[in-house]
This record gives sequence, C-alpha cells and structure tokens, in this order.
Amino acid sequence: MNKPLNRQVLLKARPSGIPKAEDFEIVESPVLEPIDGQIVVRNLFLSVEPAMRGWVSNVGNYSDPVPLGGVMRAFTVGRVVASRSTACAVGEIVTGMFGWQDYAVVDVSKIQRRIGEIDLPISTSLGVLGLNGLTAYFALLDIGQPRANETVVVSTAAGAVGSCVGQIAKIKGCRTIGITGGPHKTALCLNEFGYDVAIDYQAANLESEIAKACPNGIDVYFDNTAGEISDAVLKNLAVGARVIICGTASIASWSPAPLGPRVERHLLVKRARMQGFLIFDYADRYPQGLIALTEWVRSGAIRYREDILEGIESAPDAIAGLYRGENLGKRLIRVASV
Amino acid sequence: MNKPLNRQVLLKARPSGIPKAEDFEIVESPVLEPIDGQIVVRNLFLSVEPAMRGWVSNVGNYSDPVPLGGVMRAFTVGRVVASRSTACAVGEIVTGMFGWQDYAVVDVSKIQRRIGEIDLPISTSLGVLGLNGLTAYFALLDIGQPRANETVVVSTAAGAVGSCVGQIAKIKGCRTIGITGGPHKTALCLNEFGYDVAIDYQAANLESEIAKACPNGIDVYFDNTAGEISDAVLKNLAVGARVIICGTASIASWSPAPLGPRVERHLLVKRARMQGFLIFDYADRYPQGLIALTEWVRSGAIRYREDILEGIESAPDAIAGLYRGENLGKRLIRVASV
Repeated sequence: MNKPLNRQVLLKARPSGIPKAEDFEIVESPVLEPIDGQIVVRNLFLSVEPAMRGWVSNVGNYSDPVPLGGVMRAFTVGRVVASRSTACAVGEIVTGMFGWQDYAVVDVSKIQRRIGEIDLPISTSLGVLGLNGLTAYFALLDIGQPRANETVVVSTAAGAVGSCVGQIAKIKGCRTIGITGGPHKTALCLNEFGYDVAIDYQAANLESEIAKACPNGIDVYFDNTAGEISDAVLKNLAVGARVIICGTASIASWSPAPLGPRVERHLLVKRARMQGFLIFDYADRYPQGLIALTEWVRSGAIRYREDILEGIESAPDAIAGLYRGENLGKRLIRVASV
Repeated sequence: MNKPLNRQVLLKARPSGIPKAEDFEIVESPVLEPIDGQIVVRNLFLSVEPAMRGWVSNVGNYSDPVPLGGVMRAFTVGRVVASRSTACAVGEIVTGMFGWQDYAVVDVSKIQRRIGEIDLPISTSLGVLGLNGLTAYFALLDIGQPRANETVVVSTAAGAVGSCVGQIAKIKGCRTIGITGGPHKTALCLNEFGYDVAIDYQAANLESEIAKACPNGIDVYFDNTAGEISDAVLKNLAVGARVIICGTASIASWSPAPLGPRVERHLLVKRARMQGFLIFDYADRYPQGLIALTEWVRSGAIRYREDILEGIESAPDAIAGLYRGENLGKRLIRVASV
C-alpha cells in the first residue's frame, strides 16, 4: 500500500444543541501502519445520523461524548485494503464505527458486519439494511407490538427510520399515518412508502388533522420528533396505546429540557405506555432483523430513499442539514467509489 | 323494614379542579322500595378517593362523569337489609359502587364482593383489601415488575396505595424509598411501612436528596403525584427503569394540561418506560390479588392506616382534604355502626 493521506473530520467545539459546520474541522495526516490484529479500512460511505447530536453532547447520554479534537464518531462501510489479521482478508466489505475519515486503522474485532448481499447496493448497509432498518424493525415490533388493523402513526414518516417503520407496519396489516414536512415528503409518503394518510406537520390545525385521520385513536405512535407534533399525537391515543420514543428531532436543545404539556394524564386515562428505544440494546438480534429486512427489500415490500452527499468536505454541515429537513431518505457521504 | 330517610350527597356544581365542599349538597328522601332482583344495602363505610376528582370532571376520563344532581359515585361497604333476590340474603356484608348515601337500592348484580374475612375489620374491604391494595398489587407487580435488590421509589409513600406499594416491594426484596410530606409521614414511612429511606418532598433540594438515596438509580418509580416530584425522580432513573403512572395528586387541574420539563430524553437515554395504570382493567384478577393481600395483612407483612371521618356530613369536604394532605392512610366515612 502506498502511503495515502487520511482526511479526518475532527470535533473542534462542543455544540450545545444541533452540531453546526463550524463545530468541525478537516485535517490531513498520513495513514497509520496497522499492527498485528489490525486492519486498514478504506471508507466508501460515511453515515450521518440525527443521533450524532447526542454523541457530541456533554449532556447525559448512552455513550461517552466524542472528545474534542477526536475524529467524529460515525458508522461507515468500507473495503479492507490491508490486514494483519487472519480473521479478515483484503477486499472484504465491512461495516463498523470507523468514523468520519478516509481510512480507519482498527482492530479486526471492530468489524460489525461483513457485507455479503452483493446484489444490493453497498450503501444500504448503512441505511435500510443497517441501523435505520434495524431500529425500525425492533422498535416497532418489540416495543410497539402492532397488531393487524391497528392504527400506527409515524413522525418523520419519510425519513430513513420512519419510512421503514411505515412499511413494516403495513406488512403487519396496520393502517399507517405518516407525519412529515411539506408537500414533497407527504407525496413521497403516499406514493412511495404506502402510508394510508400523510399529514404535513405544518398544517394549520395538526391536532384535528390527526384526529380526523385516526377516528378510532392511535394504537402505536412511533416518535422521532417529540415537541409539538407529539403533543398533538398524544391527545389522540387509543386505550392501550404504545408510544415508542426513538428520537427527538424537533427539540433544539435538551440542556435544559424544554417545557411541554405534562403527559401523565394521557397515559393514565388511556392506560398507555411510552418507552425509550436504543438499537444497541438489540445487537445480539441484528442477524434476525437483517434476514427479514433483506428479504423485504429484495421483494420490493420495503422501498428506501438515500440522500448521498459527495466528498468528505460535505460532512461538517451534514448533521445540521438533517435538522433543517433538507434530506429525503438516509443521508450518506460518499468518500470513495466502490 | 321501616321507611328510614336516606341522606344522599349530590353533586351540585362541576368543579374544574379539586372538588370542594361547596360542590356538593346533602339531601334527604325516603328509601325506595326494591323491585324484583334488587337489594337494599345499608352503607356502613363510604370511600373517599383521589380519583374522585376525575369522576366529577368533564375532561376526558375512563368513565362518564357523575351527572350534576346525581348521587356522588363512591365505593362503599354495607349490610344487606332487604333482598328481593335469591342470590343474596339479608345480613350479608357486601361492597360495591353504592355511592355517598345511607342506603342504596340496587340490582343484586351490582355487588362487587361479599366479605367473608370476619377476623379483619370490615373497613379494610375499602382500603388495603379493596381497590387501594389491589392497585398497589397489580400496578407494582404487573407494570413495575420489581426484581430483588432493585430500587423502588414511591410517591405519596404513606398513602393508602403508596404504603402498600412500599411494603409489597419490600416483600419482593427491593430497596424502598418513600417520598411523602412532613416529618410525621416520613416517620410513619420508616417506622410503620418499612421504607429504607423516607424523603420529605418539601426538602430544599429534592433532586439531590433522591440522588443520594438512590446511588444506583431508580429501577421502579411508582408515581401517585406527577409534577415537580416526578421531575426530580425522572432525573435519577436507572437504565431500563419502569415508571408506573397511577395518580397525579400534585396537579391542581388538567384543563389545560400544565407545563413541565419534557420527558422524552430521560426515556430515550435510559430506555425507560412510563405506563398508565387503571385498576378496573384487572377486575377478573381481583380474587388472586386479594388472596395474597389478605395473607400479608393477616401475617403483619403489610400494615395499613385508616383515616375514618364520622358521619355523612363530613363527605363534601373529604376529597379536598385528601389533596390538602390531611389524612394518614385510607380515608373513609363511617355512616353506620357494624
């Protein structure tokens, strides 16, 4: 291997809310030599997640924050270009938390998955066949427990997770209502992702739009937003409803927690449940989820959209762009060609 | 049977928040003659519940509101003094929703339970061996699912439900922390109900008091209050925590819902669950719960307190008194001697 330069996106400042372009900087340095047991991964696609806001935050979280000056933590998919491990061959396509950088020099144990589905685009391994699809699958089925003919409402319905949730709910025989932003995404919800109803959250009276779409109340609410969208949804729960707390995209900052209408009365009167979900708790069941998801993607039962930015230069502003709602589908950054 | 007068407590005005004495009036009228299938119950004890606030409210609830001019809905225990049903004999002691009145003329099917435990006071059938004990039993065990050595926090820890929750949690091997108001009730929590720690919610820094008492976080929170007490508790949840929403005693009015810190981030980071509980959903399992509770009361593993008011004249102000925190234990009104 020649000694290529490694471009890396470092966390320069600790954001209090949504990470901005100025919170990162791109630096170049030589790729390190692997030692015994290590591999060198040439990243092909870098993932961009709403959850990254939490990863760079000092507020209590499920993992330590990315250190200042450190490479931005990120899922990626890449090709192994050097290996000092018998457990991995040069040429394999692997996923892992290899960071926002061109090359990662890591222990072979850091491989999360070896990609064998060569009939499907490699990029899917970071989206519909990655944590987004797995999140939709386990959160909806395990926490939401939807039954046929129940009403399922999804916020960020056209997003990488939400679109998959809506389609899995449909596969399970549910009525699906998608909440999203703007006419383009509502059309996508109806025409591409098969929602029975799509609601623009910018509607004049969101609460009555939801009530009209859910005459028997909401049995499952898959919540990626929190905030005023959830306030309107929670007023329309059915008895025994399950609310899956998967993300809080509409909340600009949790430090301190913003105020909203207290939820206890909804939960009490409707004997409803709200439960937080973190995909990493399901790591030992990923293979089971991937078998189902891959089958559904192959058969066309699940469709997906990707929003692919070109070049590592687009990384610093990519998270803020998610929160501006500018992407349609899973946001990725292509840093090399397959 | 002579024709005694029936004193009845009627709902005179619809309260927007906590029902006050002026919202009720006491009227007298002759006891009606039972028709075929009916019994006449001479009430002995009338129950007073925090939930009565919901029963008289027009805000969405799990049952129709008590109509204006109607007898106040209430659980009671009484003696059958006349029967036109072969299914019930004069002299039986029965419970049911027989209302705040001296006499109830009802269909025999309205009997909820026939009291056979003559070794225990009849009043227990409305408290520790009634819906309070059953609420504690099913809400804690079914929704809370406490495991040995877990930390269980109870709000209104000295109350009719809370005191029972704390003791059942102790029976299950948990560490129990009770939150209550004032030195008298904290002492009762420690000395009578066996809590490991009792915290006065009027403490200067409730959040740090809770954190100090729960160094490993809170696994189960049995919430009877909502409001600022819950805000402080939720900041101290352990991963995988279960929050049982059983009552909202600290909230003066739900119309409109008061504002509080949004809870989604707590639930997400801790993968915690909040779930509303209503005892009526467990009606077919009451016998199972009563067997366990009766055994624990007989053995002394569960202790209870009762706050017995004398005479139906004390009914109108009795609910407001609950919310003033003036009772120690289950509040009842004695309207006749056994």
